[in-house]
Amino acid sequence: MKAEIIAVGSELLTPFRLDTNSLFLTSELNQAGMRVVHKSVVGDAPDEMCLSFRHALERADVVVSSGGLGPTDDDRTRQTVADLLGRKLYVNDEVLQSIRERFRRFGRAMPQINERQAQVIEGAVVLKNPRGTAPGLWIESRGKIIVLLPGVPAELRGLMEREVKPRLLALALPERLYTRELRITGIFESDVEQRVSPLYAEYPDSDTTILAAPTGIQLHPRVWSDDPAKAEKMLDEMVSRMSLALGEYLFSTKGESLEQIVAHLLIENHATIAVAESCTGGLLAERLTSVAGSSAYFLGGAVVYSNELKTSMAGVPGELIESKGAVSAEVALALASGIRKRTGAMLGLGVTGIAGPSGGTPEKPVGLVHLAIADERGARETVMQLPGDRERIRMFSTQRALDLVRRYYLYPAHGRA
Amino acid sequence: MKAEIIAVGSELLTPFRLDTNSLFLTSELNQAGMRVVHKSVVGDAPDEMCLSFRHALERADVVVSSGGLGPTDDDRTRQTVADLLGRKLYVNDEVLQSIRERFRRFGRAMPQINERQAQVIEGAVVLKNPRGTAPGLWIESRGKIIVLLPGVPAELRGLMEREVKPRLLALALPERLYTRELRITGIFESDVEQRVSPLYAEYPDSDTTILAAPTGIQLHPRVWSDDPAKAEKMLDEMVSRMSLALGEYLFSTKGESLEQIVAHLLIENHATIAVAESCTGGLLAERLTSVAGSSAYFLGGAVVYSNELKTSMAGVPGELIESKGAVSAEVALALASGIRKRTGAMLGLGVTGIAGPSGGTPEKPVGLVHLAIADERGARETVMQLPGDRERIRMFSTQRALDLVRRYYLYPAHGRA
Repeated sequence: MKAEIIAVGSELLTPFRLDTNSLFLTSELNQAGMRVVHKSVVGDAPDEMCLSFRHALERADVVVSSGGLGPTDDDRTRQTVADLLGRKLYVNDEVLQSIRERFRRFGRAMPQINERQAQVIEGAVVLKNPRGTAPGLWIESRGKIIVLLPGVPAELRGLMEREVKPRLLALALPERLYTRELRITGIFESDVEQRVSPLYAEYPDSDTTILAAPTGIQLHPRVWSDDPAKAEKMLDEMVSRMSLALGEYLFSTKGESLEQIVAHLLIENHATIAVAESCTGGLLAERLTSVAGSSAYFLGGAVVYSNELKTSMAGVPGELIESKGAVSAEVALALASGIRKRTGAMLGLGVTGIAGPSGGTPEKPVGLVHLAIADERGARETVMQLPGDRERIRMFSTQRALDLVRRYYLYPAHGRA
Repeated sequence: MKAEIIAVGSELLTPFRLDTNSLFLTSELNQAGMRVVHKSVVGDAPDEMCLSFRHALERADVVVSSGGLGPTDDDRTRQTVADLLGRKLYVNDEVLQSIRERFRRFGRAMPQINERQAQVIEGAVVLKNPRGTAPGLWIESRGKIIVLLPGVPAELRGLMEREVKPRLLALALPERLYTRELRITGIFESDVEQRVSPLYAEYPDSDTTILAAPTGIQLHPRVWSDDPAKAEKMLDEMVSRMSLALGEYLFSTKGESLEQIVAHLLIENHATIAVAESCTGGLLAERLTSVAGSSAYFLGGAVVYSNELKTSMAGVPGELIESKGAVSAEVALALASGIRKRTGAMLGLGVTGIAGPSGGTPEKPVGLVHLAIADERGARETVMQLPGDRERIRMFSTQRALDLVRRYYLYPAHGRA
């Protein structure tokens, strides 16, 4: 079955705002067995909107829209769809009561304009929206299904999960989409592609999406199937063969972030960690502490921009900075060992580098980053020359630093000092 | 003139990827005088793609597409548009040479499949793409303009800026879009709306988009006009009246981030700053150092999760933590003053709070955050009870901390210790 998503709202046609609701809607529709064949964004002009719905109904079996259900003159989705289907709008008493009731709960009288939100298309099923005033509408017409949802993400999500998806699942479509997710770090997107693409031909019923981000590369093998057991088996097999092909670069097959993986490993090993970072400016500490419960393993960090602070906060000898330079293997090692000692942590991480755009020299260009990890036996250093702008260099540096911790536990032969 | 944007690519119909190119394209089209009336995303099935282009040509004067110009079988934009217009594809020798040359520069022979990228639609203008192998194509047909661009963002941007926009500007459309941007922090979106919306009725030829994010609220007043001087004057007037209405909550009318504003103020005042943060885990230091050249004012930071480190790194007396609790006004003040002294910075910032999801108590619930700013005369504290999840609480806390620095300089009567 084919589905189409329409986002309604003139603000989505400006350079400032994206329709992000469609990602969630796509995921839910796929799980209910619908393939999304087209997405569109349209403003609130009724003729434009009408065209979009008409074209969508020509193409798809299910059309889901978001937005345009508010109380103002600009909110025209209800009227437009009613006109297109040749149906009337009427004020639904039950909906009107629930809107009044909602305003009463917040200690206000319902403004007159909100009565508009109680308008329902003849023959539509009203989908209750406990998070807002506008209900969703489910309309069946000439073998097609049209679902109108509000654009507010929390309201849309609630309605989709509780009202729309169960109804779609009740259609009991024979085919569903089954998926897995693998996350990889430390190699390029093209390397990932090269390692896994030979498998594609062996699983012609599947397709695999690859998505690169500074926080890791995601691989999503997907199978449309009418046989759940067969699909799950195929995906399990794909995941295990892909895992073999990706080796130590694979860090998760369950959708966890690298931060979460590092958190698991530290907790499992009853370890504590501290960081001393220069060019990453706090981002490494921020990522380590972005995980709920990080106080179990994270003791603290020093963001040491000035040379004086590298000495006073992380114990790097002033002579070392003078002789080797602040961006050097030796200073990275001293930062990792120094912060470990200062804080009493079991592991220390040190980062020093040149994030740019200025500060580079022919010998030490922008993008040069030294990382080190220290334990009670000593410290180990690694150096990178990173491409990209300041933000990218900082993000990749912390990605690699987190990966040092993962490798320290999982690949001790390479990773340990 | 009406424009429509089509993003081609099956991966854009998965739950994992958004068409972000369209924001940039919209901005460029608007500046050249085109209103974007519709955006769509379509997969690489030729019949679906053909429908999207056909519908777009019915609606708009200019159709710009991104994607589907690669070398593989899945890249069908050229063929589909050629078929739709009833034109032929031919291999353009000049394009073929330039693709071969590009591969030669990287020390490789051109793979056979890349020859496909030298295919050009009859009558099309070839738009040179120095950043990639696929050129753009500019096609005029029955009074309409069709522009095909590659989907890789850097290539699309380069082609749009250097090849497409000048050609669109040469059409010399009478109307153009003129815009401004105001950035606000410290009040809710609804408060911003309430303060500025009375102005809307006085400028009926304008429309204003409001966009809320944890890093501040953006207001974009926009005017379509055929009279540049009149439009600029109207916008200047709107900006100055909006500025009055927004008062001290307005931090920029030039599109700068709060980090940049704080950087300007610190540099202008020849000041240095250091931070000691607990619940924000490094994010405050990260934001202060995200600005290029931040080493001019940022000395360093301490991320002090454990109580021991609050004492050893930021000089907070252990007795104070014991008597008042780690999350308290007193500890925030001691963090700000302590880090200032330890680092020799002119200003110190302290943050302590409960980011959650766990760690809250009835007296000190999740979202309770104490902030302090210290100078040579003493320290000043502020407390907030923030809604939302861990990420949101951390982001809002740092936003408010940065704003303390802005207010320290711009509103010293309130902001100074």
